[in-house]
Amino acid sequence: MNNTDPANLMPVLTSSENQNDTLGSVMEAEDHVALGDDYALTASFVEKVVDAADTGDGMRLRSLLEDLHPADVADLMGFLTAEHRAVVVQWLPPELLAETLPEMDDGIREEVLERVPSGVLAEALQELDSDDAAAVVEDLEDDQREEVLAAMPEIDRAAIESSLGYGEDTAGRLMQREYMAAPQFWTVGDTIDHVRTHGDDLPELFFNIYVVDPLNRPVGGVAISRLLRAKREVALTDLMEPVNEIIVDVDQEEVAYIFEKYHLISAPVVDAAGRLVGQLTVDDVVNIIQEENREDILRLAGVNDEDRSSSVREIVRSRVPWLGINLFTAILGAAVIAVFEGTIQQIVALAVLMPIVSAIGGNAGTQSLAVTVRALATRELNSSNAHRTFRRELTVGLLNGLILSPLVGVAAGLWFWDWRLGAVISAAMVMNMMVAATVGVLTPVTLSKLKFDPAVSSAVFVTATTDFFGFLIFLGLATAILL
Amino acid sequence: MNNTDPANLMPVLTSSENQNDTLGSVMEAEDHVALGDDYALTASFVEKVVDAADTGDGMRLRSLLEDLHPADVADLMGFLTAEHRAVVVQWLPPELLAETLPEMDDGIREEVLERVPSGVLAEALQELDSDDAAAVVEDLEDDQREEVLAAMPEIDRAAIESSLGYGEDTAGRLMQREYMAAPQFWTVGDTIDHVRTHGDDLPELFFNIYVVDPLNRPVGGVAISRLLRAKREVALTDLMEPVNEIIVDVDQEEVAYIFEKYHLISAPVVDAAGRLVGQLTVDDVVNIIQEENREDILRLAGVNDEDRSSSVREIVRSRVPWLGINLFTAILGAAVIAVFEGTIQQIVALAVLMPIVSAIGGNAGTQSLAVTVRALATRELNSSNAHRTFRRELTVGLLNGLILSPLVGVAAGLWFWDWRLGAVISAAMVMNMMVAATVGVLTPVTLSKLKFDPAVSSAVFVTATTDFFGFLIFLGLATAILL
Repeated sequence: MNNTDPANLMPVLTSSENQNDTLGSVMEAEDHVALGDDYALTASFVEKVVDAADTGDGMRLRSLLEDLHPADVADLMGFLTAEHRAVVVQWLPPELLAETLPEMDDGIREEVLERVPSGVLAEALQELDSDDAAAVVEDLEDDQREEVLAAMPEIDRAAIESSLGYGEDTAGRLMQREYMAAPQFWTVGDTIDHVRTHGDDLPELFFNIYVVDPLNRPVGGVAISRLLRAKREVALTDLMEPVNEIIVDVDQEEVAYIFEKYHLISAPVVDAAGRLVGQLTVDDVVNIIQEENREDILRLAGVNDEDRSSSVREIVRSRVPWLGINLFTAILGAAVIAVFEGTIQQIVALAVLMPIVSAIGGNAGTQSLAVTVRALATRELNSSNAHRTFRRELTVGLLNGLILSPLVGVAAGLWFWDWRLGAVISAAMVMNMMVAATVGVLTPVTLSKLKFDPAVSSAVFVTATTDFFGFLIFLGLATAILL
Repeated sequence: MNNTDPANLMPVLTSSENQNDTLGSVMEAEDHVALGDDYALTASFVEKVVDAADTGDGMRLRSLLEDLHPADVADLMGFLTAEHRAVVVQWLPPELLAETLPEMDDGIREEVLERVPSGVLAEALQELDSDDAAAVVEDLEDDQREEVLAAMPEIDRAAIESSLGYGEDTAGRLMQREYMAAPQFWTVGDTIDHVRTHGDDLPELFFNIYVVDPLNRPVGGVAISRLLRAKREVALTDLMEPVNEIIVDVDQEEVAYIFEKYHLISAPVVDAAGRLVGQLTVDDVVNIIQEENREDILRLAGVNDEDRSSSVREIVRSRVPWLGINLFTAILGAAVIAVFEGTIQQIVALAVLMPIVSAIGGNAGTQSLAVTVRALATRELNSSNAHRTFRRELTVGLLNGLILSPLVGVAAGLWFWDWRLGAVISAAMVMNMMVAATVGVLTPVTLSKLKFDPAVSSAVFVTATTDFFGFLIFLGLATAILL
């Protein structure tokens, strides 16, 4: 679980409340107001930091940074250039640096880690929960990783190593190994006494107590607000309710789906034998959901993977492949046009109008695509309603075509004073809308059937198809009817 | 807070654990396995329900549905046709119907609500937390709303009415009015005793105890796991930590950002005077995050708002406007081509090649757009790094252009055996890539500066611009150089 400690929500973070005077008392020096009303870092604060970094004014930097929440420090890093980050990192108090690491964009974290001595890092990581520590160690170069792990106490090292033993993006990798479990025979009183005496071995925060059998397999869970309500002598087994176990090798996307669907706050993670090995908490899941959504939006646009910390080189690498594929498909479209060169020679108006047919088709296809990709991501689309969805999209495509084609037809007819040309473009547009609906739905559905990400490369393929058929249908009809 | 009661996580929901035998014991009749390994409803289960609904076999329906989690019932509704939903609703046990209503897609909920008698509804709503009840009442037709509210106990009605008094999509509308607050002078013991005796007045589940001053203004919060750790005689004020207050009129998008950034589980909601009026919990926020992300993906694709329950008519309404705008912009592009009809007449190859320039430009622009929209949504982009981002995108555009243009140039040169034509298309492509980067970044940034949603209409505008300039630059250069 990431740092949920409200203690880090320094007064400086409540500047928006300060707009009305409820927290005026805890207001800090104007100088320190880092966040705007929208809780995001203000440009002016970022500039203050940049100035301090430029002048190498370490004391000033520290005074600006020390009160920030780790999430805001990580956020700040994203707004800085690599040079400025180098300066800022030097002046971060070690414990704040530790808590900031798990919050950073991967790219920035890797860059920062290279600058932190292994000894310091080993110290810092012990402050973190196992899942956060593992996430950081994961990013280290092999040799540095060796050093850091070697410099850590056996128990922490073991926790991190076993966490890294699980596949990337699995529940096992995401879970924290700290949790609160109680044997079946305990009462509410036993549990509270245990928590009071062994508080230090327990996670920073926890929301459920997992009741386990002698083999450490969860038999149920007790929300601590329910524990609080019950009398000391009540048995946990009388309070407990079924829990939604998550197996270590379940993919993070599935984890997010389960948490979201059942509004879970935390869930026990079990190994293949059903033994409790850790727990997942909703705040980690929120990060996953954002990650997955980010991927969908970017992939639909033909961007592989990049964030604000990516270098120009990385960005080009992440975008050029799709543009290359698009170049290839565009040439296919051009080839179709080439077939009708003769027709265009005789009726240049066709060259003027053909992009209209392909453009509308491309947009209609993208609409169907986005809706379908989203439905697949939220599992609202499966084989039981796939046909209905497809029929619906076809109908919509037809109707949209019938609504818009008269406009195009009349416009074209008046423009070139040729009603037959208007009829041809109207007909071509309606047909291409049907093509758009078909490819817009079938592309992502097929990809997901084949266990590929439905978002990836769909858009390029959809627009390529609508271009191809747009030109083919329009120029083909024109050749047949107008010549 | 939606229904987080793990009691609803019926054994039937753990079918995936049943794949390995950890929970074999609680396995239900094969007949009842509703969920696949991925925790989504299986097509076969949906078909079973459809069959039962077709044959009007109510007993069978009830036996299929009664063990489902409300979230799964709501999910099921989405897979059914309106006719089948009508049958299924009749056979839903009242309390299950109540818990299912807040989980349904808005469209479906409105449809279902029209079929439920006001009396039944009034009964059902009293089972729900105030925020969920309000969300349901919100969807009722005015007359039905009157009836339902009239049939409810004064206290519940008051809660719902005041909740509906807050603006849509604000913290006030989303919050639940049930929370656990304690006066500053209480000890851990006082608090636990209070919870044990007044448990019924408290929310289903809670995670923080808000410490309030005599004017009921939060002065801090105590996570209940910390309360559990402390000795009875410890004062709450010694345990409490600053809390991140949220003001009633804050927009839900901001609420989501705050929860996500600081990994909050729950937060107190205060009125303008800083008095505690309710609380927000992370599970509601997860829904908001998904809603906002869905909006972004669909709007980028030119889809206003629709879900799987939308009628064909609603879908056409949500998509035709953008296609209409796109039609208009496409005609502008055509007008540019028309200017060069003479050139095309002499060199038809231009008509063949021009879509390549516009297509690649459109894709590059969409890439920049998606990245920028995402950065704005996550507040990773503000005036302090806007210029850097813009310069970066321009550089990327230039590089992508320089990487791809030789390919196009050579291909075109060989195709039409004219190296000058190759040179023209290469140059045009590089220039249009710069146009793409510019419009891809500036469009969403400008929209958000003007307080519009950066996603809305951006894509249409970006591709329109790249088409327009793609044709203009390519045909313009051709006219200047080749004629």
